[in-house]
Amino acid sequence: MSGSLLTQVQERARQARLAAAQMARQKKEKRTAALLSMADELAKNESVILEANKKDISRAEALVNEGKMQRSFLNRLHLDSAKLKSVIDGIRQIAQMNDELGKTTLNRELDDGLQLYRVICPIGVILVIFESRPDALPQIMSLLVKSGNAGLIKGGKEAELSNRAIFDCLEKALSAHGFPKGSFTLLTGREEVADLLKLDSYVDLVIPRGSNELVRQIQENTRIPVLGHAEGICHLYVDEKANLEMAVKLSVDSKAQYPAACNAIETLLVHRMIADVFLPEVVAALREKHVEVRLEKSAIDSFNLKDVCTADDTDWATEYSNLTLSLKVVDSLDEAIDHINTYGSGHTDCIVTEDEKTFDRFFAEVNSAGVYCNASTRFADGFRYGFGAEVGISTGKLHPRGPVGVEGIVTYKYKLIGRGQTVAEYSGDNARCFKHQDCQ
Amino acid sequence: MSGSLLTQVQERARQARLAAAQMARQKKEKRTAALLSMADELAKNESVILEANKKDISRAEALVNEGKMQRSFLNRLHLDSAKLKSVIDGIRQIAQMNDELGKTTLNRELDDGLQLYRVICPIGVILVIFESRPDALPQIMSLLVKSGNAGLIKGGKEAELSNRAIFDCLEKALSAHGFPKGSFTLLTGREEVADLLKLDSYVDLVIPRGSNELVRQIQENTRIPVLGHAEGICHLYVDEKANLEMAVKLSVDSKAQYPAACNAIETLLVHRMIADVFLPEVVAALREKHVEVRLEKSAIDSFNLKDVCTADDTDWATEYSNLTLSLKVVDSLDEAIDHINTYGSGHTDCIVTEDEKTFDRFFAEVNSAGVYCNASTRFADGFRYGFGAEVGISTGKLHPRGPVGVEGIVTYKYKLIGRGQTVAEYSGDNARCFKHQDCQ
Repeated sequence: MSGSLLTQVQERARQARLAAAQMARQKKEKRTAALLSMADELAKNESVILEANKKDISRAEALVNEGKMQRSFLNRLHLDSAKLKSVIDGIRQIAQMNDELGKTTLNRELDDGLQLYRVICPIGVILVIFESRPDALPQIMSLLVKSGNAGLIKGGKEAELSNRAIFDCLEKALSAHGFPKGSFTLLTGREEVADLLKLDSYVDLVIPRGSNELVRQIQENTRIPVLGHAEGICHLYVDEKANLEMAVKLSVDSKAQYPAACNAIETLLVHRMIADVFLPEVVAALREKHVEVRLEKSAIDSFNLKDVCTADDTDWATEYSNLTLSLKVVDSLDEAIDHINTYGSGHTDCIVTEDEKTFDRFFAEVNSAGVYCNASTRFADGFRYGFGAEVGISTGKLHPRGPVGVEGIVTYKYKLIGRGQTVAEYSGDNARCFKHQDCQ
Repeated sequence: MSGSLLTQVQERARQARLAAAQMARQKKEKRTAALLSMADELAKNESVILEANKKDISRAEALVNEGKMQRSFLNRLHLDSAKLKSVIDGIRQIAQMNDELGKTTLNRELDDGLQLYRVICPIGVILVIFESRPDALPQIMSLLVKSGNAGLIKGGKEAELSNRAIFDCLEKALSAHGFPKGSFTLLTGREEVADLLKLDSYVDLVIPRGSNELVRQIQENTRIPVLGHAEGICHLYVDEKANLEMAVKLSVDSKAQYPAACNAIETLLVHRMIADVFLPEVVAALREKHVEVRLEKSAIDSFNLKDVCTADDTDWATEYSNLTLSLKVVDSLDEAIDHINTYGSGHTDCIVTEDEKTFDRFFAEVNSAGVYCNASTRFADGFRYGFGAEVGISTGKLHPRGPVGVEGIVTYKYKLIGRGQTVAEYSGDNARCFKHQDCQ
């Protein structure tokens, strides 16, 4: 990395920091108007955007033909009128959504004329890194505008022309509404990202949207907080008091409805008491969906299953992301919970049971962002939760956790308004006492 | 590090993880009763604890005499009847405080019979590392019990006997109330901490309470989230529309009332328009409190100040933690805000002004955990905010931010209760629609 490149990236980050300060005092009406203009600009420039996308696609096709890119990339890269329309509709929806910026969540009189408030505010500068899909760019930028954050945005090289065309539209709309220069920057080089990951004084949060590999690499190379998850190892536990027909249906949906999703299950846990009835049924249903089931040798023998693969300990920690499912027979609820807390990634885990007390324990003890009862793990998603949009799903233990919408990319600060009070007055022999009176 | 030591530390962390799962379903009444017993046990065993502390003190005195330890350590290490009583009172207060565990913060009907809840819950396993002060141990453990978290606690070697005596009392109380084995572990070796910092699958949060050096070292050596701050570079900005008498009083309190505190200011920013009147007054008042003022050469000359030291650019980024204060004359509110966002540590920054609009801009644009108007920065403290207790002050941008009390060491999880719904039903041509109806 050359010194001048660092300076350039640093300068962009510094511009973003300055812009973030200005954005923090924008009114809601301005953000809403800017979002609606962003949608309009995209609609107006459809032909320019689709033209740019065609060029990206033909470059990518050449790479596919040379064997340098997987064909599945083409799908993700591809934009058409319908996809663009759905993106534009999405921005208009985001514009209408509630936001909590400026809301006071604590209002406490510490003493006469010494008032403490906790107020929701933007985080500051967010670095978003995503791969291939150009429709992610307007979605991300609209979430950042909505939440009052400045953005450094890195798209995939293969979508360079599409991203540039989209970004130009969005930037034009923002600048027409007086958004400060440098509020948003589109980055193209990988080296720029590596440099930005070092600038923890300018960048407050990193959101990687892409492969597990990408996320893990970023987590390991920055001190900046990272929102996202490298792995989604989700479980479905079929309790001894489960409705078995429901359990079969949920197993199939949670695994096979879209196996590449992070909220699809990798392991099915089955209580020994119902295993002899349930296993043949679920294995047959999964086989119909072309799922390969892997089971411990001892269980294969006990339950006399045929055409089932053998699982070993590495399976419990594997995110297959395809039509493979590991299956374990457990002796108790405790064993199921312990297995999930040991091998799970804290994403989403479900129990199938008709017993409320059993679910209560499962809910309290499984330490994951989503703990479900009798519903497919595939519901773990910002849109399905009604957040309108999603920046990612966080498997960390702290806020924001689980599917993260606009309200997950804001923070708060404390405002204290006094009339010259000193701490000395509240110390020593004749110390004043605090009132600590909460106000409505 | 030997393999067997890793295994031992890993085993303790695993025990804590298992205990955390059990603690997560404890009722509030049980936590309250345990806290009251903890207080009682400490009161009952005062003589044992003070005896152990005497031994620590005499060992430490020997080290001081050999020049291997600073004398100021003795003060922090020292326990007496009064200090212990205040600790015990503190635990009883914590026992009576509200907690939010189990509270539902979102209750949304996704569709008929598909109900989503967001529920406040403990974080899990928290590693707390603190130095010298044995009175920190009962305070920390009571906060962890209150918040439902399991704890791995590392105290200073110099307080080993005091910590052990205190820990034994607390553990006895917890075990009498059925707290699981391994809920809390007292660690003694430094190597154990280094190993625990690697166990991000068992430890959810690290709270270092001690020197900046300790915090920085931990931040740089773990992927586990760290709650705390390495630096407290706070500012007081005296605006052109300030009440100057108030500004002098607040400058003195914010710097000199307790200069070693993280919420004491390091830099005073003064608007040029009032500098000629204000500077001589504030410099004189600070000198009375033995504060050494450092000022840019150009300002020293312009305002004809005597006996003032010269500041250079490194001063703006320095946390003196003593009676030194850097002072900068600025031309505008913008320059003050930019200086704070560039050199500050995001802890607490104050403006002295009589103009509400100026404060509104300062509040919106200064990106710190605490943004004050006309009050000493020294108010930034969990006790003064009325949190009852404080685990630390976080200068990060995300939750929890600022002074962190019990409600900062809890998190939430999503609970979804269905009756067998699959995502397949909500996809494709005849897809069901979500209701997304919020309930009270």
